[in-house]
Amino acid sequence: MLGHADLSLTIKAGVQWGLFAGSIQALGTAKHHERYLRDAVETDLLGCFAMTETGHGSDVANLATTATYDEATGEIVVHTPGPDARKDYIGNAAQDARMAVVYAQLITKGERHGVHAVLVPVRDEAGNALPGVTLSDCGRKMGLNGVDNGRIVFDQVRVPRENLLDRYGQVAEDGTYSSSIASDNARFFTTLGALVKGRVCIGGAALAASKTGLAIAVRYAESRRQFPRPGGGGEEVTLLDYRTHQRRLLPLLARSAVLSLAQDELVAELHRVTNPVLLGAAPSPGPQKALEAKAAGMKALLTWHATEALQEAREACGGAGFLSENRIAQLKGDTDVFTTFEGDNTVLAQLLGKHLLATYRDTLKQAGKLGAARAVTTSLVDAYAGRTPARALAGFVGETLADLRRTEDAGPLDRDWQLRLLAHRERRVLESLVARMRKRSAAGADAFTVVNEVQDHLVLAAKAHLDAHVASTAAAAIERADGEGSERARALLGRVLDLHVLAQLEADRAWYLERGLITPARSRELTSAVNALCAQLRPHAGRVVDAFALPEGWLGASIAR
Amino acid sequence: MLGHADLSLTIKAGVQWGLFAGSIQALGTAKHHERYLRDAVETDLLGCFAMTETGHGSDVANLATTATYDEATGEIVVHTPGPDARKDYIGNAAQDARMAVVYAQLITKGERHGVHAVLVPVRDEAGNALPGVTLSDCGRKMGLNGVDNGRIVFDQVRVPRENLLDRYGQVAEDGTYSSSIASDNARFFTTLGALVKGRVCIGGAALAASKTGLAIAVRYAESRRQFPRPGGGGEEVTLLDYRTHQRRLLPLLARSAVLSLAQDELVAELHRVTNPVLLGAAPSPGPQKALEAKAAGMKALLTWHATEALQEAREACGGAGFLSENRIAQLKGDTDVFTTFEGDNTVLAQLLGKHLLATYRDTLKQAGKLGAARAVTTSLVDAYAGRTPARALAGFVGETLADLRRTEDAGPLDRDWQLRLLAHRERRVLESLVARMRKRSAAGADAFTVVNEVQDHLVLAAKAHLDAHVASTAAAAIERADGEGSERARALLGRVLDLHVLAQLEADRAWYLERGLITPARSRELTSAVNALCAQLRPHAGRVVDAFALPEGWLGASIAR
Repeated sequence: MLGHADLSLTIKAGVQWGLFAGSIQALGTAKHHERYLRDAVETDLLGCFAMTETGHGSDVANLATTATYDEATGEIVVHTPGPDARKDYIGNAAQDARMAVVYAQLITKGERHGVHAVLVPVRDEAGNALPGVTLSDCGRKMGLNGVDNGRIVFDQVRVPRENLLDRYGQVAEDGTYSSSIASDNARFFTTLGALVKGRVCIGGAALAASKTGLAIAVRYAESRRQFPRPGGGGEEVTLLDYRTHQRRLLPLLARSAVLSLAQDELVAELHRVTNPVLLGAAPSPGPQKALEAKAAGMKALLTWHATEALQEAREACGGAGFLSENRIAQLKGDTDVFTTFEGDNTVLAQLLGKHLLATYRDTLKQAGKLGAARAVTTSLVDAYAGRTPARALAGFVGETLADLRRTEDAGPLDRDWQLRLLAHRERRVLESLVARMRKRSAAGADAFTVVNEVQDHLVLAAKAHLDAHVASTAAAAIERADGEGSERARALLGRVLDLHVLAQLEADRAWYLERGLITPARSRELTSAVNALCAQLRPHAGRVVDAFALPEGWLGASIAR
Repeated sequence: MLGHADLSLTIKAGVQWGLFAGSIQALGTAKHHERYLRDAVETDLLGCFAMTETGHGSDVANLATTATYDEATGEIVVHTPGPDARKDYIGNAAQDARMAVVYAQLITKGERHGVHAVLVPVRDEAGNALPGVTLSDCGRKMGLNGVDNGRIVFDQVRVPRENLLDRYGQVAEDGTYSSSIASDNARFFTTLGALVKGRVCIGGAALAASKTGLAIAVRYAESRRQFPRPGGGGEEVTLLDYRTHQRRLLPLLARSAVLSLAQDELVAELHRVTNPVLLGAAPSPGPQKALEAKAAGMKALLTWHATEALQEAREACGGAGFLSENRIAQLKGDTDVFTTFEGDNTVLAQLLGKHLLATYRDTLKQAGKLGAARAVTTSLVDAYAGRTPARALAGFVGETLADLRRTEDAGPLDRDWQLRLLAHRERRVLESLVARMRKRSAAGADAFTVVNEVQDHLVLAAKAHLDAHVASTAAAAIERADGEGSERARALLGRVLDLHVLAQLEADRAWYLERGLITPARSRELTSAVNALCAQLRPHAGRVVDAFALPEGWLGASIAR
């Protein structure tokens, strides 16, 4: 909701409640909850999340800041060993934060235990930096200038042992380290799991900004006229009646609506998997891991969408789109870093890709025990797709080229054909990835080379998975719609989903053509179908915008009034 | 050159010298040149170019501001008839301009003669608005905030008859209108021809900004390390050694270099066609028209490239790319409107497309007289491509599918095959466009529907033309390189051109597959070839950046030091 209004406030709130209070809640224990949580939530204690360093942004397992336990005094010494270890880009750090959750390499008795979180006061009540803490401002940015991003350097700063957030790793008074998770790496990834909510929120905020920007651009395109209609008695044509303008805006509008349905499903899953009241206990690792992978992928998908949608909205509004008073400029500037923070999208897509590979491997192992080739596929679908087997997925199992070709007869608007094709691609991209990696490994390539040579393929596997997931999730959500007027809503949303899916298939049609999964005739038909759907949805574009339910005053652009 | 340094200054200079002084020079006569030109060039007279109105940006033939000749007083009355007729977005108008070249509908003796340019003083020496002139500021923008874009409303402002820039249309003292160009429309398009230099400059500035942004991103990618190399003793991998990072930056770097060669050729052509000293007379209409079409298309291509390259450069630099101190943010914000002003890119692409259609029609007419089908194609190539018949174009004439397929055997690095394929596409897209329009017209569709239904096809025709033009121009320029070390330079530039062309073919491969112009095997080979070329060029990326010859201090980004 905040994402529709002010993205700097969204991020400030996300840092305070999601990352700062969220770390205390997820990584701390009762003593931390009792002492800090209420103040953090009430904003009586303002905080920041000091993870990123100048030298390490994506590779946070190799952070260089140290937290060394000194058993002589019972204190933890937090220290920045060099310029690359400086905490950098930390939201709330330049001005507001009084306390930081510092992620640092924990060292006890000369032994390293990997990255842990420690609470470190950084400012006094009056806002002055505490001794040993050097704070500075990252300066002006492309956007989000309402967020005080800053840098923090620690010079042997001492805090009590109790300041270690010790849910997953504890230090006894004598410096003995203990943890229920044996491997440093596994422990760190459990720690990072606390970030899952942040990623879901960033995706949601990106989607909100996309909707606002597209709403402004569609409103403008419905009212702005340019060039008289030949033989139209001087009447000028509205921008949205031009085919090129329809093609610029309507597929992105459709995608925003479809992504909303997928994001709703993700939020529900987040609630199911992580809500302690519902769970009554810690989340079970399987669903938690699947959720983290899905949240990483959806964050990448939604923020890439925001970048594309807001760029197109800006251009589609011409000079008016460039003026700050029409908001798109700021929405674009503010969201631009969304593809970078809370995990760089290219890295997140690989994270999802690797999760798909791991699930594939586990499924094969499991299936090996069952000994049935058919079971492999079925269980694979259930496992890594992680979605209710929909109508379309029945055809996924043992789908052959001939099957797909036969379905083609039903025409490009056939939902079954659309979902089959997306599901087929998802599986095929993953299987060919596995085959390529095996082949290179067998040929003796080293680990880095094997992964690096298929890096683009790994990202593609994540995208193919997300495309199939989003389409089938949206199809199921539309089918579930009920109540008054739901029949017409389903019909309109069905066309919206068609436009989204066919525009996606059109963009990726080379992949399908290369593998003979669609005929050249069907491929060209996709372009005509997208054109036809644009024309068909043109009179309903305003209705789709209305369905975003943005209060009139929230658009705030003079061209959208 | 200015485009490498400060884009607001680039635009301010472009408005003052290119548009304001340029209008006086191109549309005025001796009396205007003598009275104003020196002051305008010396910036003793600051001016603006008042064409765009709130209601009309792209469709400038339908501007609503009026310039009515009053024979009683011998004055021209400039007036804004309504809110939509307000001059809007006018560079230099909010603060600096003392005089405006106002584009308005000329009316004499109650008769309209289309859009003409009139010199109207708007501020006194002290900078106060003159009587009848209301000036305001467009306010904050996404970028280019060093340019004072403003709005102007005229309330019956009177200027002497001599203030009409009367090269193409004259008003006698008694109000009699005369012009050497009979049609209002043709006269207006001749007037607009004066804009050709501006478009060439905007393209050049966009390219300069792309090069600066990519130079910063490549430098950063060469030094920034993230994640240890497995088995590498803790050494971390530079970003540019990752395949995904290579694919993000290197094809755009290659495209920038290739576009430079095409832009150089355009600048030379501009000089040849429009330089009055060289010409000794007014430009001849044929080459002038071809130049205008090419400049329109190249402006669109170069500014689309800037938007894409700077977006990618921002993302490839992660959080550092979002900080203003690293310049990419401002380069992106400043150039974003380049796709809009000096002609919206989608409109300009259609302008080029329509020029290609007209040339095609003229060529067919001409060929009809010759009566030889073979001559059609040859002369078509010479005429609308407007380029020296290169080696590759020999094969263009009467190219068949079998021919193209046979050439495929030579491998994707074969320049001949690459250029043939691009040229084949150019012709084929145009011919199928003609066929579609004929078919729809024959079926009785009205003019608007015929053009609107093929609007995306028309834009594609322009793009296909530009792609073929850019590649063959660059290939010829590389072949011409001589002097010391030129053999090595040609070899490296050859690989750079390969990467550009193959990345382009890869992006458009669906089109070729749909028409059987490449095999599925060759299509997949394109992806491997782009990957291989990226790896091959990775050690030379810094050298390509060096070849942009940006003085070290001009990069001005702390991450590029």
